Amino acid sequence: MDYMEQLGQRAALAKKSLATASTGEKNRILEEIARRLRMGENEEKILAANEEDIAHARENGIEEVMVDRLRLTRDRIQGIADACIQLTNLEDPVGQIIEGSVRPNGMKLSKVRTPMGVVGIIYESRPNVTVDAASLCIKSGNAAILRGGKEAICSNKALMEVMREAVAACGFPKDLIQLVEDTSREVSVQMMKADQWIDVLVPRGGAGLIQSVVQNATVPVIETGTGNCHIYIDSSADIAMAVNLTDNGKTQRPSVCNALETCLVHRDIAERFLPALAERLKEHQVELRGCRRTAQILGEQVVPATEQDYATEFLDYILAVRVVDSLEEAIEHIGRYSTGHSECIVTESYHNAKRFQEEVDSACVYVNCSTRFTDGGEFGLGAEIGISTQKLHARGPMGLKELTTVKYLISGDGQIR
Amino acid sequence: MDYMEQLGQRAALAKKSLATASTGEKNRILEEIARRLRMGENEEKILAANEEDIAHARENGIEEVMVDRLRLTRDRIQGIADACIQLTNLEDPVGQIIEGSVRPNGMKLSKVRTPMGVVGIIYESRPNVTVDAASLCIKSGNAAILRGGKEAICSNKALMEVMREAVAACGFPKDLIQLVEDTSREVSVQMMKADQWIDVLVPRGGAGLIQSVVQNATVPVIETGTGNCHIYIDSSADIAMAVNLTDNGKTQRPSVCNALETCLVHRDIAERFLPALAERLKEHQVELRGCRRTAQILGEQVVPATEQDYATEFLDYILAVRVVDSLEEAIEHIGRYSTGHSECIVTESYHNAKRFQEEVDSACVYVNCSTRFTDGGEFGLGAEIGISTQKLHARGPMGLKELTTVKYLISGDGQIR
Repeated sequence: MDYMEQLGQRAALAKKSLATASTGEKNRILEEIARRLRMGENEEKILAANEEDIAHARENGIEEVMVDRLRLTRDRIQGIADACIQLTNLEDPVGQIIEGSVRPNGMKLSKVRTPMGVVGIIYESRPNVTVDAASLCIKSGNAAILRGGKEAICSNKALMEVMREAVAACGFPKDLIQLVEDTSREVSVQMMKADQWIDVLVPRGGAGLIQSVVQNATVPVIETGTGNCHIYIDSSADIAMAVNLTDNGKTQRPSVCNALETCLVHRDIAERFLPALAERLKEHQVELRGCRRTAQILGEQVVPATEQDYATEFLDYILAVRVVDSLEEAIEHIGRYSTGHSECIVTESYHNAKRFQEEVDSACVYVNCSTRFTDGGEFGLGAEIGISTQKLHARGPMGLKELTTVKYLISGDGQIR
Repeated sequence: MDYMEQLGQRAALAKKSLATASTGEKNRILEEIARRLRMGENEEKILAANEEDIAHARENGIEEVMVDRLRLTRDRIQGIADACIQLTNLEDPVGQIIEGSVRPNGMKLSKVRTPMGVVGIIYESRPNVTVDAASLCIKSGNAAILRGGKEAICSNKALMEVMREAVAACGFPKDLIQLVEDTSREVSVQMMKADQWIDVLVPRGGAGLIQSVVQNATVPVIETGTGNCHIYIDSSADIAMAVNLTDNGKTQRPSVCNALETCLVHRDIAERFLPALAERLKEHQVELRGCRRTAQILGEQVVPATEQDYATEFLDYILAVRVVDSLEEAIEHIGRYSTGHSECIVTESYHNAKRFQEEVDSACVYVNCSTRFTDGGEFGLGAEIGISTQKLHARGPMGLKELTTVKYLISGDGQIR
């Protein structure tokens, strides 16, 4: 029996207790997790473990920006505990009746939401994801198997210990939430192929991680989070709004998936828009990589854009720019290079707004507002487990509901076919 | 460029026209397909091609029951055409607004159903699936790439030619529907890995086909149709109803996925129920494979059941039988052996009915009615593309809605974060 099979069997035994637990019971677990995370002695243990991870990271010469992602502080731990409490306020999707009917033969049919069963999550360095993901799974009635980055293993173990004790204190089996402590590549692949035990796998991280999961997994996967997002400035756009939205999308937080990577601009407005944009983006020293026509307008401040630039999620103060001849050309460019996350048109034309929203095939299609709003909280879903960029099951921000499946309950009095 | 890439590129070009087509336009294609299938000369061509397939099958010594699945007749072609017309009456899911809200900052959010894009379907011998699958894809706004069994290749080509001409006659690109004419294993694997081109893959067929797709695919898969279905006869069951439901589930059409394979019976009712069941099942000469206690009650007419029998989808006049000590034991047995398709409890106990429906983790959980009702038509969905036994995206009978995804449309007036 391989390592993942052991975790899978434990999860299979544990999950039953949670699948039929009441909302009150699930909220009590979350409150207990928050309470224990805030206890002084646990905080000490978690911070000490985190120090170990940081020391290892420094020994291995990891960049300071990555070290910062790893770091836990008293404040951050408070924030993580607060997030658990916020989850208790969200509606419990389990048991909701979505549809129902009485069939002509008198059978009563209802389609109800139920937990998936066991959710697997593979993520990278931030240790807060360990608590976020576990608590989302608990609230949605699922057992969780979490595989975090090896850089955060000490922090994750410490956080997991506190959470598992909280689960046990509420009378539930600890194995509702399990950490994959063996962070070898081999066990990671075992996890991707554990379709007998894991009902859905959610990779959270960079494009490399996501692709590795898609290529290897036999467990159904929900791809998340790679966002090569576009803004298209239509010829009728309000220039001030277009500058605002492009600036906000690029510079408010460039490292996240809903940040802008490419600005497409209609040729009829390019000469007025591009200088205003360049001026605004100077504030954050954004590097512009533009097409030939962009360079003709902006001159030396533009680096020539390559094909590869249009396909890249920079996650940095870099913006690809291209002048296009028409709305069609913009939609076609997006169809070719987008990862299907979030795109925006800035326009005063009713017709063009409608066409853009109809024809662009991405999870979130905006008219005249920032792509930075693609987020579970901003959409009113409460917490989110990630942003799906695939089309199966969930698309866009995934809340608690997206961690559930459905089943049909059919009640009769002896009906046969 | 490999074979599947060519099909994928053609589908990508063609799909746009259908994604934004009106319901009226899509219905007109379906009507035109039906009209052309009914034309004498086309019927001749299709029947002649079908004769070729049947001759090949006989040469290859294929069993007569399989040859019958392959066979098309004038009546069957009429039936296929009728099914296209019936589809025109079903509600079009595309464009439906599922949820919507106005965010505190004034942004308007709506979540709307849109086509998946390109749907791949891999199926086995029945040529009628070629038309069913293509027409379901058209109605739901999707381009289709269909890979049927090689035994039916001549019939499939003939059917596809008629359908593609109908598509073109309605002013749409023929490549909306494409047949994989190269039925080699190599191209089949290319199809499973064509995630760049195909948005979802639906395998329809036996357990071997489904497993091969799950193991190889990088395209998101919806598993369908393997049904190791159970009926549990509770101690409080009405014996006549229990016999009726077991008989109906087993014998009304044993070759389909919602037929019963195992009967579990509570020990307190076993001595009254089993002889009555055995008597009824004699009519269809059903072979009983039972546990030790079943044999004690029924004697020689019972073949000893092996572990393997409980795990097998017989699709034949064979029923596995097991006497259990409790509802819990029945639920546990189902948890271990079921494929998650359809299960039934026969009971007069409110409490046991409720527990069974809550704790059994299958797509369709019945109280006092036959598992044979798990079907898109019976559930009121109209046509179905298959019955999903997985938990992602769709579970249970999949209608048109399950061939769509969603996108968020967000409209604002300059909102930034």
